[in-house]
Amino acid sequence: MNHPRKRIEIVVEQVQAETVTELLERLGATGWTMLPVMAGRGRQGLRQGGVPGGVLDNVMIVAIVSAEVAIRVADARDELLDARPAIISISDCAVLRAEHF
Amino acid sequence: MNHPRKRIEIVVEQVQAETVTELLERLGATGWTMLPVMAGRGRQGLRQGGVPGGVLDNVMIVAIVSAEVAIRVADARDELLDARPAIISISDCAVLRAEHF
Amino acid sequence: MNHPRKRIEIVVEQVQAETVTELLERLGATGWTMLPVMAGRGRQGLRQGGVPGGVLDNVMIVAIVSAEVAIRVADARDELLDARPAIISISDCAVLRAEHF
Repeated sequence: MNHPRKRIEIVVEQVQAETVTELLERLGATGWTMLPVMAGRGRQGLRQGGVPGGVLDNVMIVAIVSAEVAIRVADARDELLDARPAIISISDCAVLRAEHF
Repeated sequence: MNHPRKRIEIVVEQVQAETVTELLERLGATGWTMLPVMAGRGRQGLRQGGVPGGVLDNVMIVAIVSAEVAIRVADARDELLDARPAIISISDCAVLRAEHF
Repeated sequence: MNHPRKRIEIVVEQVQAETVTELLERLGATGWTMLPVMAGRGRQGLRQGGVPGGVLDNVMIVAIVSAEVAIRVADARDELLDARPAIISISDCAVLRAEHF
C-alpha cells in the first residue's frame, strides 16, 4: 500500500528558489512545496528573515521524488550547488499513491 | 533512549486542513503541527500562496505518530484523499519521549 | 556521494527558540533552519499562531547534524526539555556535501 520514495529538502535563498525548482522539474520531479524560513544559521553565520527587500530570505523546498529522480538530483550536484543552497538533505519516505510521484 | 515513530507529512489546501487534522486526531494522533506554504507545484500546476481570500493556499501538516496510528492513516487512505491532499508522505523517525506520542 | 546524517526537528515556543538553537550549536550543530508554525495541537491542547504579542507562537527548528551530534542532543535531553518543546523527532537523512555538517 505504501510506495518508497525519496524526500529532498533544500534550503536556499528565495532569489535562487526558482532556479532550484526548475532544476528539480527538469530532472523529473512532479511536484514541490516551498515553505517560508524565519531565520537560520549556517556557514555564512546567522540569517534573519524579514530584511527589507527580502533578498537574503531563505525558503525551504521539499520535493517527494522517485529513487531515479533522487539519483539524478545527486548527479546534478554541481548544478544544484550553483544556486548556493544552505542545505540539501535526502531521506527515505513512502507515499500512499504510487501514481503521483 | 530513542523510540521509533512515524512522521506523516501532508500538504493540503488550507480550507481542508481541519478535515485532515480532525481525521488524524480521530485515528489516534496525539498532536500535529501546521506550517504555512508559500508556493507549490503539483498535478494541478503551479500554486502561489497569498491569493486574495487565500482559498487556494496550501498548508503542511506534520504529525508524529505510532506505527499503529500510521497504519490506521494508511487504511483511511480513501477518506484522507477526500480532502484532496497534494502530498501524503510517511517516514521513519524517533522521539526522545515515548510517553508523548 | 551521499553522506549519512541525522535530521533533528524540534517544535518549540518562539520565546524558547534561541535557547534551543544555542544548545544545538553548543552541542556541535553547524547550522539550523527556523520555520514559522501556524497552528498545532499537542498535550497542551490547540495552539493558534498570530496571538497578539506572539508569545504563544511555536516555531519549527530543523538541524542536520552528524550522528555524534545527534547522540549528544539525545544525551542532553533533560536540558533540551527545559525549553518545553512540543516535539523532538530525529530521522535519518543523507547530505550531498560531507564537509558542511
